[in-house]
Amino acid sequence: MRYELYYWTGIQGRGEYVRLALEDAGAVYIDVAREKGDDAITPFLRGEHPGSLPFAPPFLKAGRTVIAQVANILLFLGPRLKLVPDSASAQSYAHQVQLTLADFVVEIHDTHHPIASGQYFEDQREAAIRRSEDFRKHRLPKFLDYFEHVLERGGKKHVLRTHSYVDLSLFQMMSGLDYAFPKAMRRLNRRMPLLRGVQQRVADRPNIAAYLTSGRRLAFNESGIFRHYRALDDH
Amino acid sequence: MRYELYYWTGIQGRGEYVRLALEDAGAVYIDVAREKGDDAITPFLRGEHPGSLPFAPPFLKAGRTVIAQVANILLFLGPRLKLVPDSASAQSYAHQVQLTLADFVVEIHDTHHPIASGQYFEDQREAAIRRSEDFRKHRLPKFLDYFEHVLERGGKKHVLRTHSYVDLSLFQMMSGLDYAFPKAMRRLNRRMPLLRGVQQRVADRPNIAAYLTSGRRLAFNESGIFRHYRALDDH
Repeated sequence: MRYELYYWTGIQGRGEYVRLALEDAGAVYIDVAREKGDDAITPFLRGEHPGSLPFAPPFLKAGRTVIAQVANILLFLGPRLKLVPDSASAQSYAHQVQLTLADFVVEIHDTHHPIASGQYFEDQREAAIRRSEDFRKHRLPKFLDYFEHVLERGGKKHVLRTHSYVDLSLFQMMSGLDYAFPKAMRRLNRRMPLLRGVQQRVADRPNIAAYLTSGRRLAFNESGIFRHYRALDDH
Repeated sequence: MRYELYYWTGIQGRGEYVRLALEDAGAVYIDVAREKGDDAITPFLRGEHPGSLPFAPPFLKAGRTVIAQVANILLFLGPRLKLVPDSASAQSYAHQVQLTLADFVVEIHDTHHPIASGQYFEDQREAAIRRSEDFRKHRLPKFLDYFEHVLERGGKKHVLRTHSYVDLSLFQMMSGLDYAFPKAMRRLNRRMPLLRGVQQRVADRPNIAAYLTSGRRLAFNESGIFRHYRALDDH
């Protein structure tokens, strides 16, 4: 199967969780918009293709099947790329943790856009500072503690006692948080040794290491979900 | 199977999407916290039960299986309650639309809590007014148009050409929006005839009609996700 990934060019964004799974598994895929431009995405959103109607990218095309929503794409890809155990209960739990990570990603995004995703950061800067204060104080440690607890349960090295797409997504989450909130993440370092372990082990996986130094891995930037604004980090 | 639903007492909240599925199917279930108090929930969040670790309620206990995240619970219950077609592609699409609805619910919640979910509305009222203006102008019509388009594709009466748990969730979404933003919803009425149709047909289903007039259906209130504050609606 040759997969087609549809996601906006110029940022890692939510497409990156899917990309990491495809890269880790050595899957054959096309990053369609990077080859043909963002215009390749819009006909799907307008409903000009049959089947599943996506609200937004990323979506994946596998043959004639179109699947949207990051966690749903990974639910589909997991067994096909051997990135999740065979049992239904393990797949359900992997998906549950992935959905919680997706909720966290929304909160991370909203630290810099608490008022309107369609307006500039500078126009919501004061609200962003307030939201980020609460985020660093309450939400960031709460979510990190949860994922640390999940790893503890999984035997300390993985969410699921074996490598899975959820570990890959935890790597992306940690890398993005390190980029966006370097001081807050250093402050919280001691309470997340297991997360740091997963992050390092994923980075060391041969296909991931090769991907991270390739041109396909874009740098984090201030158009993406994880943005570094000094005013939003610890002081 | 006797299901156990765990969700905070006092509000419909995210538990309601699960409740509507259980009620519509005539399933046997216990709303555990309503019988034993909210304290019944916390041991699961602390990790004192084996298996899946929930980040937050709602979660469902089915035998020894614990499943969290609304859309994941419905993904699990759908085939068991015959609230989704048999085919894998239909179930994947149902789940995708449900996940988009879950994203929308976050945005609806954040209209009244754009800064911090742990702080009072009154302490983030000005930010809430700004976020709600953008929500009513951009996000509300964008999501409603999407779901209307989904219904158009499904043959106009259902998301999936037949009744499913997603229709039940659309009913809840529409009812909540009517409660929270009555003026904005009236303004947008003409662009969502299919959503209005689903909302009415779900309300008329015998088990749902019986549920809605029972004591089990709590009223919307200003502790829940859908809150009515006049300052946040059209003027």
